[in-house]
Amino acid sequence: MPNAGFKSTRSKISQKISNQSKSELNPDDILMTSGAAGALNVILHSIINEGEEVIIFKPFFPEYKFYVDNHGGKSLFCDFKEDFTPSIDNLKSLISSKTKALILNSPNNPTGVSYPEKILIDICQVVSEAEAKFNSDIFIISDEPYRYLEYEDSNQPFIFDLHKNGIIASSFSKDLSIAGERIGFVALGEKIKDKELIIDALNFSNRTLGFVNAPALGQRLVENSINALADINKYKTKRDYFYSELINFGYEIVRPTGGFYLFPKSPINDIEFTNLLKKEKILVVPGTGFGAPGYFRISYSVDDSVIENSLDGFKKVIKSFKT
Amino acid sequence: MPNAGFKSTRSKISQKISNQSKSELNPDDILMTSGAAGALNVILHSIINEGEEVIIFKPFFPEYKFYVDNHGGKSLFCDFKEDFTPSIDNLKSLISSKTKALILNSPNNPTGVSYPEKILIDICQVVSEAEAKFNSDIFIISDEPYRYLEYEDSNQPFIFDLHKNGIIASSFSKDLSIAGERIGFVALGEKIKDKELIIDALNFSNRTLGFVNAPALGQRLVENSINALADINKYKTKRDYFYSELINFGYEIVRPTGGFYLFPKSPINDIEFTNLLKKEKILVVPGTGFGAPGYFRISYSVDDSVIENSLDGFKKVIKSFKT
Repeated sequence: MPNAGFKSTRSKISQKISNQSKSELNPDDILMTSGAAGALNVILHSIINEGEEVIIFKPFFPEYKFYVDNHGGKSLFCDFKEDFTPSIDNLKSLISSKTKALILNSPNNPTGVSYPEKILIDICQVVSEAEAKFNSDIFIISDEPYRYLEYEDSNQPFIFDLHKNGIIASSFSKDLSIAGERIGFVALGEKIKDKELIIDALNFSNRTLGFVNAPALGQRLVENSINALADINKYKTKRDYFYSELINFGYEIVRPTGGFYLFPKSPINDIEFTNLLKKEKILVVPGTGFGAPGYFRISYSVDDSVIENSLDGFKKVIKSFKT
Repeated sequence: MPNAGFKSTRSKISQKISNQSKSELNPDDILMTSGAAGALNVILHSIINEGEEVIIFKPFFPEYKFYVDNHGGKSLFCDFKEDFTPSIDNLKSLISSKTKALILNSPNNPTGVSYPEKILIDICQVVSEAEAKFNSDIFIISDEPYRYLEYEDSNQPFIFDLHKNGIIASSFSKDLSIAGERIGFVALGEKIKDKELIIDALNFSNRTLGFVNAPALGQRLVENSINALADINKYKTKRDYFYSELINFGYEIVRPTGGFYLFPKSPINDIEFTNLLKKEKILVVPGTGFGAPGYFRISYSVDDSVIENSLDGFKKVIKSFKT
C-alpha cells in the first residue's frame, strides 16, 4: 500500500467531496491518516519551517498547541466574540509575514458552534489580503471531524472553495461513531500552491513521523461505509433537552449547532466552578484550557440517563449564584 | 480507552513477555502504539532533549535518522564488522555525556543477522560504564519487529534483562503478517529509571504526537492472537534456497538468521550494481541508504516464483564481474 493509503478508499472520499463541494478532487488529493490528529501533524510537519507562525482561533482544541510545537512552529491565538465566532479585527492584528497557517475548527470543540459562511469569507479575505501584502502563501487548515454532525443543515462550505490554499483535516470517528480506530484523511483543493510538492511532503511526513500509513482495516471500513452516518437525531435530541434544561436553571449558553458539546458561561472562575460541579459528581472541563477562561465544556455524547441524573447537580450549583 | 490502549491487550502482552524473559512486567509497563515506527517516535519524543545524541548501529533502517530528527536529537552511527555485528571499539569512541540512547535492531533490517548474546552483553557493558563515568542514564531501545522471525532458535535475550534502562519497541506486522494495520507496542523493564515519569511521558507523547491511541481493532486482533505466528518455515525455506543459489553464483553473503532479507556484497559501487540488476527487472535496495555502501538489500518476502524468476538475472550480473 502507498503511504497515502488504498487508492480505492481515496477514490471514494474524493468523489464524495467532489459531489458536495464546488471543487473537483481526485484520489491523489487525499491522504489517509491516523485520524484528524494524525492529519494535522502530517500537514504541519509538511508546511512549517522553524519559527513560522500558526494562528489558532479561541476557544480551541488544546492539542493544537502541541501539534504546532511538535514541528517547530509558534502558535498565536485569535480572540473570539460573544457568539464564539472569531474577532476579525484581532485576526488582522495577528497576521503577518511570519504567518504560515491558520487552524479553523467548525463545528467547534469546545463550543459546538459553527462559523457562518459570512465569517469564513471574512477570514479568507483577511488571509488573501495578507498573502498579497507579504507576497506569501498562507494555508487555512480546516479541522472538521464534526462536519456531518450539524443539526441546522448549515451546509458549511468547503475551505478550498473559499481559499485557494485550503486544506481539510478530518476523521470518521464521529460520523461513524468509531472513535479509537484512528482513521481520517487530508484533502487538498485543486488549486493549492505547489500541489505536487505538498502531496510529496504529506506522503513523506506520514511515513517518517511514524504513522507510515492509516490502519488498513479502518481504510476498508470507511471505503465500504462512505455515506453512512451515526444517527444524529439522537445527538440533536440530547442537545435540545440538555440545552433547554440548563437555560431554565439560569445558565447562559450560546446554542450549539453541531458536535456534541455545550460551552456555558461560568458565573465565577471556571476552575472553581467546575470543582463545585465535581462535588456533585459532574465531570466537565474548565474553559481555561481551551483559551476561554470564564466558560466550561460539557460533553453530551453520553447516555440519556447520565444527562438526566446530572440535572439536579447542575441546578443546585447555579442556584447558589442566582439569588 | 486510555491513550496506552486497552488494559486487556496490554495484560496479554505483559504476560507473554514475563513468561519469556527474566523480568516480571505488568500491563502498565506496556503502551500500545501505531506499529514499531509509532513506538520509536513516542519513545524518542519522551526521552530526548534538544541536541542530545542517539547512537544507531550500521547497517540501519534508514527511517531511524528521521525519527531522531523529529524530536530534536542528533544521530551518530556506529561502524560494523564483516559479520554485521557492531564494532565495540567504535561504540566506545562515540558514547559520551551527550548520549541519551542507542537504537538496536536485531534481527536486523537490512542484514537479516541477529546480534549474538555476547555482543549484546558487550554493548550493555559499554553503556553501563558510560552511565557510571558520566553519571547519566542511557536508554537502549531494542527495535525488534523480527524477534519471532528467527530461524536458528537463538532465543535473543530481552534488553531489559541485560540493561536496566532497556526499552522494547515492537510490532505485530511480521509475527501475524498484518503489515499495514499499524499495531505495535512499547515495553519497559521493571527497573527502568524514573519509571512512572517515563510511563506518563509515553502516554502524553502518544496523544500529542497525534497517534492518540493504537487502532482499537488492531488491539483486539492481537489480544486474541497473542501466541499466533506466521508460518516461519515458509520464510526459512525461501532463505535456504535463495541464499544457496546466490552463493553458488558467486555472491558473498553473511548468512541471515532471521527476518526476510539478504544483504550481499556488491562487487562494484552498490548504486551502479543495483542499476545493473534493475535492467534485469530485479528491484533491490543499495546499501548506501542503510549506512553500508558496498552492499545491497534483497527482500525475500515474495512469492517463490518471483525468487525463481530472478535467479537468471542475479547470475548474469555477477558473472560479468567474476571471470
